[in-house]
Amino acid sequence: MSAEVLCIGTELLLGNITNGNARWLAEQLASLGIAHHRQEVVGDNRERLIAAVRAAAGRCRVLITTGGLGPTPDDLTTEAIAAAFDTPLVEHAAIWDDIQTKLSARGRPIAASNRKQALLPAGAQVLPNPAGTAPGMIWSPRPGFTVLTFPGVPSELHAMWQATAVPWLRQSRLAEGVFASRLLRFWGVGESNLAEQMDDLLAGTNPTVAPYAGAGEVKLRLTARAADQAAAEVLLAPVEAQIRSRTGNLCYGVDDDSLASVVLAALRQRGQTLAVAESCTGGGLGGALAAVPGASDVFLGGVIAYANSVKQQLLGVPADTLAVHGAVSDPVALAMAAGARRVTGADWAIAVTGIAGPGGGSADKPVGLVHIAMAGPQGAVSEAVRLGASRGRGWIQTLTVGEALNRLRLAL
Amino acid sequence: MSAEVLCIGTELLLGNITNGNARWLAEQLASLGIAHHRQEVVGDNRERLIAAVRAAAGRCRVLITTGGLGPTPDDLTTEAIAAAFDTPLVEHAAIWDDIQTKLSARGRPIAASNRKQALLPAGAQVLPNPAGTAPGMIWSPRPGFTVLTFPGVPSELHAMWQATAVPWLRQSRLAEGVFASRLLRFWGVGESNLAEQMDDLLAGTNPTVAPYAGAGEVKLRLTARAADQAAAEVLLAPVEAQIRSRTGNLCYGVDDDSLASVVLAALRQRGQTLAVAESCTGGGLGGALAAVPGASDVFLGGVIAYANSVKQQLLGVPADTLAVHGAVSDPVALAMAAGARRVTGADWAIAVTGIAGPGGGSADKPVGLVHIAMAGPQGAVSEAVRLGASRGRGWIQTLTVGEALNRLRLAL
Repeated sequence: MSAEVLCIGTELLLGNITNGNARWLAEQLASLGIAHHRQEVVGDNRERLIAAVRAAAGRCRVLITTGGLGPTPDDLTTEAIAAAFDTPLVEHAAIWDDIQTKLSARGRPIAASNRKQALLPAGAQVLPNPAGTAPGMIWSPRPGFTVLTFPGVPSELHAMWQATAVPWLRQSRLAEGVFASRLLRFWGVGESNLAEQMDDLLAGTNPTVAPYAGAGEVKLRLTARAADQAAAEVLLAPVEAQIRSRTGNLCYGVDDDSLASVVLAALRQRGQTLAVAESCTGGGLGGALAAVPGASDVFLGGVIAYANSVKQQLLGVPADTLAVHGAVSDPVALAMAAGARRVTGADWAIAVTGIAGPGGGSADKPVGLVHIAMAGPQGAVSEAVRLGASRGRGWIQTLTVGEALNRLRLAL
Repeated sequence: MSAEVLCIGTELLLGNITNGNARWLAEQLASLGIAHHRQEVVGDNRERLIAAVRAAAGRCRVLITTGGLGPTPDDLTTEAIAAAFDTPLVEHAAIWDDIQTKLSARGRPIAASNRKQALLPAGAQVLPNPAGTAPGMIWSPRPGFTVLTFPGVPSELHAMWQATAVPWLRQSRLAEGVFASRLLRFWGVGESNLAEQMDDLLAGTNPTVAPYAGAGEVKLRLTARAADQAAAEVLLAPVEAQIRSRTGNLCYGVDDDSLASVVLAALRQRGQTLAVAESCTGGGLGGALAAVPGASDVFLGGVIAYANSVKQQLLGVPADTLAVHGAVSDPVALAMAAGARRVTGADWAIAVTGIAGPGGGSADKPVGLVHIAMAGPQGAVSEAVRLGASRGRGWIQTLTVGEALNRLRLAL
């Protein structure tokens, strides 16, 4: 027996807005330990709304709806839910008073259409809306099924959820304990490859382990359910340890870590600094580092050497190295890294030069070929990476940033 | 008879990610003129998947699914759809060859689990995946009902949609007329402010005009429906002209334009070049420029002057300017822009220096204060912008990039 979410609004079906409410409610339900097996979106259509509510009533114990509580003719949620259970609407004088008071306070005219917002199915309780005019309801039209309605405006939904829904859900006995979750992040391994090493753990039920692919990285989400937070954490710990021991240094971080934040933390601990020299990423590598709060004590900056003239003038890459080997080569990457280290005075420098495409590739040096060099206190290395052309320019740039940061992470 | 969207993934029900695919598909279906009455999300659960597919088959003509096509045990989409119609899976040798070729090209090991991705229900056609290993399918398990499956990775979904699904849907006779759509992009105006100037147009029904807010920008989507593309364009044109005349130079572009692509195009037309000098964005400004294919004929590069020492050494910002005015000031921004122009030889340079937070703010120079300077053939200007602290570091960095590019756009 679980909860379902029904989001109502034609604007969602036209793609005018992203359904952020569905995600927010999903997170809230997970943190309350309430199982949630289905989300649905329907437009402002009375028949389809009635059908969706009736179907949900046959599947779940709690249905949470968002949207369709406003005063306009296309706001149909309350009347459709009442109709789904053949129940008449009754006016709540207290709601109507409250609506008139709120509209007057904002200097808004009171329209006849607002009165519709004071109607609820007979037997429903008011779910007060401290932030707006449209109240919601909590209603059990039949034993074992309750519907809670909320406006689609996120700020109103959030306020009502915290004030009224959370206390109600906590005492509803829907929660089967509490969930604790950990996200392990990997670089340098494919999803299927990682999953194969985890076959036994992926089959587990508590904690569950689920793999996801991101932009170049792979993540494993561990989720444990227990009576309380501490007990859930105790279930997570041995599985996390097991995964870490199997994957070694492929696992670069947890939860909100990024490759950049991990690299910066490692350098901070050593009291060392970092600079970059970027060609094909055009600043993306520096941008990833600067995205981390507090980066400035480690990251000094560097040079965006997009044009060859900049590689020569600001990084001191010799003209004949460029002429002999081409801009996308190990010798140029090494010269860029050495130059960035020298001109900024940083302990470490990473340099990237490659062909992001879609133009500029050749048989010898195809789109997706990137040379990544790293210079540090003990010397310098450079390596060619082939990222392929098929996923496009943005993907090649994103992966280049990740590959460069991961190389530095492993070197540290 | 309409289309439905079914997004598959427990991560959606746990609230780990926002369902951007549902919105993207909704926009695509609207632009094709295909009615779309319902979206659903279910987790990686075989029984619930089968139930959802069977229910959809009873309601709609085309079901579009995303997610669950990967190689791991929780990727159940293909087998559940086959089971929903009691159809066996058959291996496609060509898919398996293709998967092995792609994995080898990326230097990834070929796992036994990848072979599962070569299985499709008997009678299904392959929907090729140019960007990844997992193909989708187009399958009509019964007359009048077709299911199209896509991976959950947005870049793969988008590529497959354009290459295969759009042509198929166009000839499917699902469309009720044709939609033409234009996205107008604005910088420098708030959503409610823009909407107020458009009250009459927002109430229109053909074309419809819908506002939405992005990261710092506001967009208006105009959508017209007509018997054919040319007739729909004729409906759009006067409304677009009306909006442009009301908003003047607030409208920076249409459809896939970005501020960076618009600025690069304007400079390319003049035969001029551009460099950057970045402090608080750390490379984000250069990254935005380099994200545009073909940027290299205009964008030369620049300096990431995150540390003051780099501002001095690579850009020639005088030490006493830094000491007297502080790094976040108009004199320093102007010196950075002049330096970037000088050392790269570019015609134009933009420089940004600011406090991205969360630390480093003061009463005098709060988090969110950014100075943006622009140096060009006719001289240089600098201006302070206050972006506020409340939305965080990433927001400030993103808005700084946009504000800087927009200033250059207006100057050109």
